[in-house]
Amino acid sequence: MTIHDVARVAGVSHQTVSNVLNGRNRVGAAARQRVHAAIDELGYRRHAGAASLRTRRAGRLAYPLGPAERGPSNTILLEYLQALTAAAARHGQHLVLTEDDPAGALRLVRAGEVDGVVLTNVVAGDPRVTVLAAAGVPFACFGRTGPDRPQCWVDVDNQAGTVAITERLVARGHRRIAFLGYAPQGGWDVEREAGYRAAMGSARLTPRVSTPDPEGPQAARAIARLLDGARRPTAVVTGSDVLAAAVCAAATLRGLELTAAPAEAGALAVTGFDGSVVGRLLAPALTTVAIPLAEIAERVIRRVLAEIDGPTDGPGEVLAPEILAGATG
Amino acid sequence: MTIHDVARVAGVSHQTVSNVLNGRNRVGAAARQRVHAAIDELGYRRHAGAASLRTRRAGRLAYPLGPAERGPSNTILLEYLQALTAAAARHGQHLVLTEDDPAGALRLVRAGEVDGVVLTNVVAGDPRVTVLAAAGVPFACFGRTGPDRPQCWVDVDNQAGTVAITERLVARGHRRIAFLGYAPQGGWDVEREAGYRAAMGSARLTPRVSTPDPEGPQAARAIARLLDGARRPTAVVTGSDVLAAAVCAAATLRGLELTAAPAEAGALAVTGFDGSVVGRLLAPALTTVAIPLAEIAERVIRRVLAEIDGPTDGPGEVLAPEILAGATG
Repeated sequence: MTIHDVARVAGVSHQTVSNVLNGRNRVGAAARQRVHAAIDELGYRRHAGAASLRTRRAGRLAYPLGPAERGPSNTILLEYLQALTAAAARHGQHLVLTEDDPAGALRLVRAGEVDGVVLTNVVAGDPRVTVLAAAGVPFACFGRTGPDRPQCWVDVDNQAGTVAITERLVARGHRRIAFLGYAPQGGWDVEREAGYRAAMGSARLTPRVSTPDPEGPQAARAIARLLDGARRPTAVVTGSDVLAAAVCAAATLRGLELTAAPAEAGALAVTGFDGSVVGRLLAPALTTVAIPLAEIAERVIRRVLAEIDGPTDGPGEVLAPEILAGATG
Repeated sequence: MTIHDVARVAGVSHQTVSNVLNGRNRVGAAARQRVHAAIDELGYRRHAGAASLRTRRAGRLAYPLGPAERGPSNTILLEYLQALTAAAARHGQHLVLTEDDPAGALRLVRAGEVDGVVLTNVVAGDPRVTVLAAAGVPFACFGRTGPDRPQCWVDVDNQAGTVAITERLVARGHRRIAFLGYAPQGGWDVEREAGYRAAMGSARLTPRVSTPDPEGPQAARAIARLLDGARRPTAVVTGSDVLAAAVCAAATLRGLELTAAPAEAGALAVTGFDGSVVGRLLAPALTTVAIPLAEIAERVIRRVLAEIDGPTDGPGEVLAPEILAGATG
C-alpha cells in the first residue's frame, strides 16, 4: 500500500496526497477531504517518523498551556483553543499542549517534535518571547510582544473597542459614563482604558475610572462605590464580561433596571469586553465588545507557518473588534 | 553529539537517556530532570522521526476537543486540560489536540502521529468509543463507556458526592431540601439526582426534584418556583456550580441570606457540584462537591498507556469526590 494507491482512489495526483500528508498548505478543502476519505477507506498507514525524516517537518505546533491561563477572567481561552485547533487543521497542522515553560517548548522544537510555538496571553517584554527568540525558534503570538521584539503577533484592537462602545453610549444620550477595568495585567487593560478616555475626551465628557485588582474584594468595593455614591453614572463601560456581569448583578440587587438608554433614575447601562460565554448567559443579554477569536486563530497559525518557512519581518496585525449588541448598552 | 554525551553530563546511563527521550515510564523525576538539563545545556537535538522509527512509539496522545465542550456548564474543562497536560508530562507524553471527530483521531493513530486517544465527557454508548474500539485503537476515557463496552474509563463517584452533601445538610438540621439538576445530558446527571434521592430516603425525608433543560429559560423558572412558591426549601442541593451560582444570585435578589444552617426565614443553604472556578468566585464561598481532576487526569493517562502496551480487561475506576466546605451549606 503506497500513496499511489491513495491517489488512485482519491482521484488526485500522488503529489497532492503527499502535500496533504505532509501538512503543506496548498491543497483545496475538497481534494483534502477526498484524500482523507481514501486513506480511511484503504486503511492506509503512513509512518509519521519516516515521513518527517524526508520532509523535516513535524506538522505540529507547541501550545504552552499554563495554570495562569485558568484565571477567572480568562473566559475565552477554551473557545480560542478550539478556534486554534480548527485553524491548525485547515493548514494540516496539530497543536501539542505543553506545560507553560518555554524550555519545554524549546526541547520539543529541538527534538523535531514540533516545528514552532504558538503563544497566548503575551505581554510586552514576555520572557517566553525572549527565550524563543534567542533560540531562533519560529513562533507567533496572540498578544503584543512589545517594541524591540519580534513582531510576529496578532491582536485585537482593544482601544478601538472601547472607543466604539463609549461612543455608542454617548450617541444614546449618556453623559455620566464610568469605566471599570482591571489594574493592568497586560497591555490590553491599558488600551481598553485609553479607548474609553479618548472617546470621553472627544465628547468633552469627564472620565471616571476605577481599575481594581482582579483578585480579592477590590472589584466588589469599586462597584459599590460606583452604584451607591453620589451622582451615580447612567452607564458603566467595563474591561471584561466578568466585570460587566458583576456590575449587572450588583445593579439588579439594588433594584436598578438594566437598559441601554439613560433613564431618570433606577436604570443603568452596562457594557462588557470579550464576547465570552459569560455575557451570553446573562439576561438581559449583555452589550459587549467581541474579540474575533476565529480570525485571530487563523492569522496566528498563518504567521507561525510563515516563520517556519523562514523569519519574516512582518509587522504585528491588529484586528478590529465587533460590537455584540445586547440590551444593556 | 549523541545520547552518550547527554548521559555523561547528566550522570546517568545512556539507557536512562533513551528511556526519557522515548517517553518510557521508568525514570524517576530527579533523573528525568538531570537528563533534560543536560539536553538543554548541550543543545542536543534528536530527530523525533528517526527515534520513533526505532521505538514505534510517538509519545503523543490525541485529545479530541469539540465545540460541544465549550458549553456554559463545562467550567472545569480548561482546568482538566491543564491537569491532563501535567499528568502526560510526568509520563513523558504530550497531548495533541484534534477536532472532535473520531475519524480524525483514528487517522492520527494510523499515521503513527499518536499512540492512543484520550476522551472526555464520555457518555454510555458514546459513538466515539464505538469507532475507536472497532478500529482497535488504544484509548481511555473520563466518563463511563456503558455496559458491553471497553471499561477503560475513570470517573468521579457522582452519586457518593450528592449523598455526602445531602447528608451534611440533614446533619445540620435541614428537612426541606430540594434538588436542582439538569435534564440528563449524561450519566453524571442521573447519578447526582440518585445520590440526593438515596440520602433523602435514608433520612425519611420527602425529595423534591427539578431537572430543567440547561439551555433556555427553564432553569431560571425552576429557581423562581423553588424560591417563590409555598413551603420554600431551607436548602437546595444542585447538580453544578453554575446552577448553584444562579440559585445564590436569585436568593440574594430576594433578600435571602446564604447560610449553612437552617434559619427561621429569610435564609437559604445552597450547594454546588464540580469544584469549579465559578464556585470559587462566589461570595460567600460556595459549599460544593469537588471533582478530583488531577487524580482523574493521572489515572486516565496511566490507563491509556496501559492500553497502548496491550489491551487490558481492567474495570472502570471510580474516584471519591471531596466536599469543599464553603459558607453556604
